[in-house]
Amino acid sequence: MELLTTNNVWMMICTALVFFMHTGFAFLEIGLTRQKNTINILFKNIFIITVGLLLYYIGGFNLMYPGFADGSAGIIDFAGFGISAPENGMTPEYADGGYTWWTDFLFQGMFAATAATIVSGAVAERMKIGPFMIFTVIYVGLIYPIAGSWKWGGGFLDQMGFYDFAGSTLVHSVGGWAALVAVWLLGSRIGKFKNGKPQAIPGHSIPLATAGVLILWLGWFGFNGGSVLSADPELTSLTLVTTCLAAAAGGVIAALVSFIKYKNLDLTMFLNGILGGLVGITAGADVMTPESAIIIGAIAGAIIVFAVSFVDAIKLDDPVGAIAVHLICGIWGTLAVGIFSTNPEHTFLIQLTGVACYAAFCLVSSFLIIFTLKKTVGIRVSEREELEGLDAHEHGMDAYPDFRLNEH
Amino acid sequence: MELLTTNNVWMMICTALVFFMHTGFAFLEIGLTRQKNTINILFKNIFIITVGLLLYYIGGFNLMYPGFADGSAGIIDFAGFGISAPENGMTPEYADGGYTWWTDFLFQGMFAATAATIVSGAVAERMKIGPFMIFTVIYVGLIYPIAGSWKWGGGFLDQMGFYDFAGSTLVHSVGGWAALVAVWLLGSRIGKFKNGKPQAIPGHSIPLATAGVLILWLGWFGFNGGSVLSADPELTSLTLVTTCLAAAAGGVIAALVSFIKYKNLDLTMFLNGILGGLVGITAGADVMTPESAIIIGAIAGAIIVFAVSFVDAIKLDDPVGAIAVHLICGIWGTLAVGIFSTNPEHTFLIQLTGVACYAAFCLVSSFLIIFTLKKTVGIRVSEREELEGLDAHEHGMDAYPDFRLNEH
Amino acid sequence: MELLTTNNVWMMICTALVFFMHTGFAFLEIGLTRQKNTINILFKNIFIITVGLLLYYIGGFNLMYPGFADGSAGIIDFAGFGISAPENGMTPEYADGGYTWWTDFLFQGMFAATAATIVSGAVAERMKIGPFMIFTVIYVGLIYPIAGSWKWGGGFLDQMGFYDFAGSTLVHSVGGWAALVAVWLLGSRIGKFKNGKPQAIPGHSIPLATAGVLILWLGWFGFNGGSVLSADPELTSLTLVTTCLAAAAGGVIAALVSFIKYKNLDLTMFLNGILGGLVGITAGADVMTPESAIIIGAIAGAIIVFAVSFVDAIKLDDPVGAIAVHLICGIWGTLAVGIFSTNPEHTFLIQLTGVACYAAFCLVSSFLIIFTLKKTVGIRVSEREELEGLDAHEHGMDAYPDFRLNEH
Repeated sequence: MELLTTNNVWMMICTALVFFMHTGFAFLEIGLTRQKNTINILFKNIFIITVGLLLYYIGGFNLMYPGFADGSAGIIDFAGFGISAPENGMTPEYADGGYTWWTDFLFQGMFAATAATIVSGAVAERMKIGPFMIFTVIYVGLIYPIAGSWKWGGGFLDQMGFYDFAGSTLVHSVGGWAALVAVWLLGSRIGKFKNGKPQAIPGHSIPLATAGVLILWLGWFGFNGGSVLSADPELTSLTLVTTCLAAAAGGVIAALVSFIKYKNLDLTMFLNGILGGLVGITAGADVMTPESAIIIGAIAGAIIVFAVSFVDAIKLDDPVGAIAVHLICGIWGTLAVGIFSTNPEHTFLIQLTGVACYAAFCLVSSFLIIFTLKKTVGIRVSEREELEGLDAHEHGMDAYPDFRLNEH
Repeated sequence: MELLTTNNVWMMICTALVFFMHTGFAFLEIGLTRQKNTINILFKNIFIITVGLLLYYIGGFNLMYPGFADGSAGIIDFAGFGISAPENGMTPEYADGGYTWWTDFLFQGMFAATAATIVSGAVAERMKIGPFMIFTVIYVGLIYPIAGSWKWGGGFLDQMGFYDFAGSTLVHSVGGWAALVAVWLLGSRIGKFKNGKPQAIPGHSIPLATAGVLILWLGWFGFNGGSVLSADPELTSLTLVTTCLAAAAGGVIAALVSFIKYKNLDLTMFLNGILGGLVGITAGADVMTPESAIIIGAIAGAIIVFAVSFVDAIKLDDPVGAIAVHLICGIWGTLAVGIFSTNPEHTFLIQLTGVACYAAFCLVSSFLIIFTLKKTVGIRVSEREELEGLDAHEHGMDAYPDFRLNEH
Repeated sequence: MELLTTNNVWMMICTALVFFMHTGFAFLEIGLTRQKNTINILFKNIFIITVGLLLYYIGGFNLMYPGFADGSAGIIDFAGFGISAPENGMTPEYADGGYTWWTDFLFQGMFAATAATIVSGAVAERMKIGPFMIFTVIYVGLIYPIAGSWKWGGGFLDQMGFYDFAGSTLVHSVGGWAALVAVWLLGSRIGKFKNGKPQAIPGHSIPLATAGVLILWLGWFGFNGGSVLSADPELTSLTLVTTCLAAAAGGVIAALVSFIKYKNLDLTMFLNGILGGLVGITAGADVMTPESAIIIGAIAGAIIVFAVSFVDAIKLDDPVGAIAVHLICGIWGTLAVGIFSTNPEHTFLIQLTGVACYAAFCLVSSFLIIFTLKKTVGIRVSEREELEGLDAHEHGMDAYPDFRLNEH
């Protein structure tokens, strides 16, 4: 009983911290984009967290964890609408004292919204809000839980031995693949490429972007710490240490590589390096030594610098660096489990198989959704709306009406 | 001992989260008002939390919980100045392992300041700071604890069977009634009504307002979660689930109703809907099924849209929507316990009686305080001060001296 | 086992809260300085937390707590590079259920970065970033851990009976002494003194500064609460009560004294008073009655007002008030233990001895580092760079590119 209570307290706190990540995402996304699209991004973020939770309640949780209610959980299964706690109110499968079914629902529900948030940043400043809301409903309500069930719900990848502790693949890459597809189908913002050369479009509030990254890092204490699914002292605290060391290493190496490459102390790269380190360690935070965590984070930090310029080079316009951070570092982190894990059962090949399965499913499903939207209702705002800002046209509001603004 | 320790850890965390709500209130209030009154609002918020804590230490706690020190707690009683922990340092009445007296004081102290903060938002941009400080001292130091003692201190409404889990009435309506009186006695801001028609006066930082709501939602994990007064796994986690689902439903329905009514994707309404859902679920968060929580939140969300335009229609000027959110949704949430509670002892009639008692006491007491202030020192700043901003006149400071500002 | 788990949960949460303080420091420092140096300050803050953690991993932890690995810990000792948990993964010396070695490392690592952050604020707007980074590496990597080992690592001051619960001296004064030396060697900002009279250089975002202080206060729940080094219910909750009451008293008295002295409701002084109260209570938060905590905080609040004008009077330019807050209130708090502690073994004389030892060590070491930097690479940016802002010159970025700004 005491251990159950302590586990449950820990998991509730982690739930709160993951919830707080949505504030971090909101700050990061608006900070790195122009003020004229601020209301639009905030509206999307608020939409995602509220609708995401309701969808997870309606069907997502039982789609992702059908086995909890004696479903079969292979490729797809569904344990019914709504949530109803088992007889004793506990999660059925965790031996170490357990925690409550309610907490499990809420913790997982906070995760669910994250995948769509990743896409939100990538499509910022030019995607119509209506189609984005439709995409969110389908992706958070159906695609994410089905994909999640393959591993966390006890599905075929779990049975195969694939490992993804807290979601380098199940959350970050699942969002990242859709971001890639959306960015490709949407096209780049007006002015992003001139004569084929990428132009910097500076974000309008670097303080909020910085605060966003620090809040995300804080939230990761819950994202990874809670993924232990108990308050086990050894595992939770090791996880926090590997998480923080990877974040630190990612930031420092990204700043260093960027300084060597561009002779500039680039704060944005520093920040994205931290996020890259965090995404990178997420798949294996509980099966790493601190040394391995630093290496994984450092490599993620280096990856970020090259990935950001690679995305530019192939003419994709990703305003917040979501593809580099969430997709590419998500893949790296998942594969890194196959290299660095202290558990000898984790192999590179199985990790690669998992990455491939998620790539195939997410690419196909997000393409089908977004391509259909493009061909029916259209996904891109008009040129005039884009130039004048989505805030004025989609929301009739101004984020900062008291301040005089530069035209651009 | 283990359970006591865990309870105490949970309660301390909830205390910290409720404390953090003051950052949320500050962001929300300044975000929804003009930049020229920013310093003034922040000063009030900082005043409320610091002075509120000290007043609660000096006498508030023992006025609100006289029974803890063997007082009688009927309509008014007082257990003496200062706080002194009982022999064993524990709260006397909670069987489930308990937690410490110190934690109880601090958790309740963080609540106390909230009531005055609600008023702060409603009177923003035109009330003199001196009288506001006097009002705060009396309302937080005397009125709130006396009102609170009727239910949470074991007073007559508690004995009658009135239920208010975490304060839809005891905190939110108590603040809301005073906000109503203050707004009525103050009059509307210059320019709010033109030819009898309400004019929008846009807030100066929607990002901060949005962050404020997200921080308030986060804080509600502690506000409601801590009101269980133990770390009981079933109750705390059910409470967090009902709280979050009501918030989500409130936001979504407010946005939807507002879209249908005004054909606009209104972020401010979305945000106020979330707050309405949170206030609405607060009275019964531990005695609701998730389904009922969604219904209560959804109704609160719809209420918000109509309440905001109703307040406008009766020519009251409430810059942040405090009356709609805290008063009207507070009443709704309290009555909803009589409809939806899983505990058959909760009845609509007793809930209504409770609401009426608080209405009478708060309306009379806040009228006496504010009317007296109006007739003596005056409560409204001069026209010039209002037009030029309270920051320059009351504080001699500028919130954003480096930015060029629009005149209005 | 249950108690160990609960202790560890509490310590992990406190670690997260101390980590969050870096967001508070960042907001406070940028809020109180001009927008043209915002990126520079944020870069320093991000550098400090990431590099600080890595340095603490590489050698800092084992320099500060050599005794944990059977070192001798007198004046200086070192238990080797990297961290390796003891056999059972627990901290060796805490009887009360203990918590894990990993948690201990991370909690202490979060503290380590704080000392350099204090300096960052004091040298803002005019110090070259390269030398600041070098200073940070040496101060966080070597000086702070050695100084810390004298008391918390079981060194000579600990053996002598010196008491510093959570770091009024070990963290705040250690940072404060270096801030004093750095400010003196750097000289004042252009325009700070005109004809020998100090000029106000207003900070560019008071909302962010205010949020910074509230976040720091929140973080102090972990800073002091975690310094109990267990979840002991009586001690942790008493500590939170004394911490919050001292903060409240510090703020109120600073605002009051400042109002009497300058006839102005000064928000910045209110905020610095809160911080002064927090720093003041930190040395003895667990050995104070609530009454003593209020007195200590109140005196710290009064000190702040006079210390800020004293620092101005001796022609030192400390943009964020770091010397008044962290150094002077840090000394006051440490001495206050000798006056108010409920533990009769704490004496004023030993506290004074401790303060003197840290003064000597920190003054000498920070002078040697910064003076050497000044005579070699130089520590001050060019006049043109200072006037145009460090953001443009050191980072090639603008914090708020969409906003029109005032020239100054």
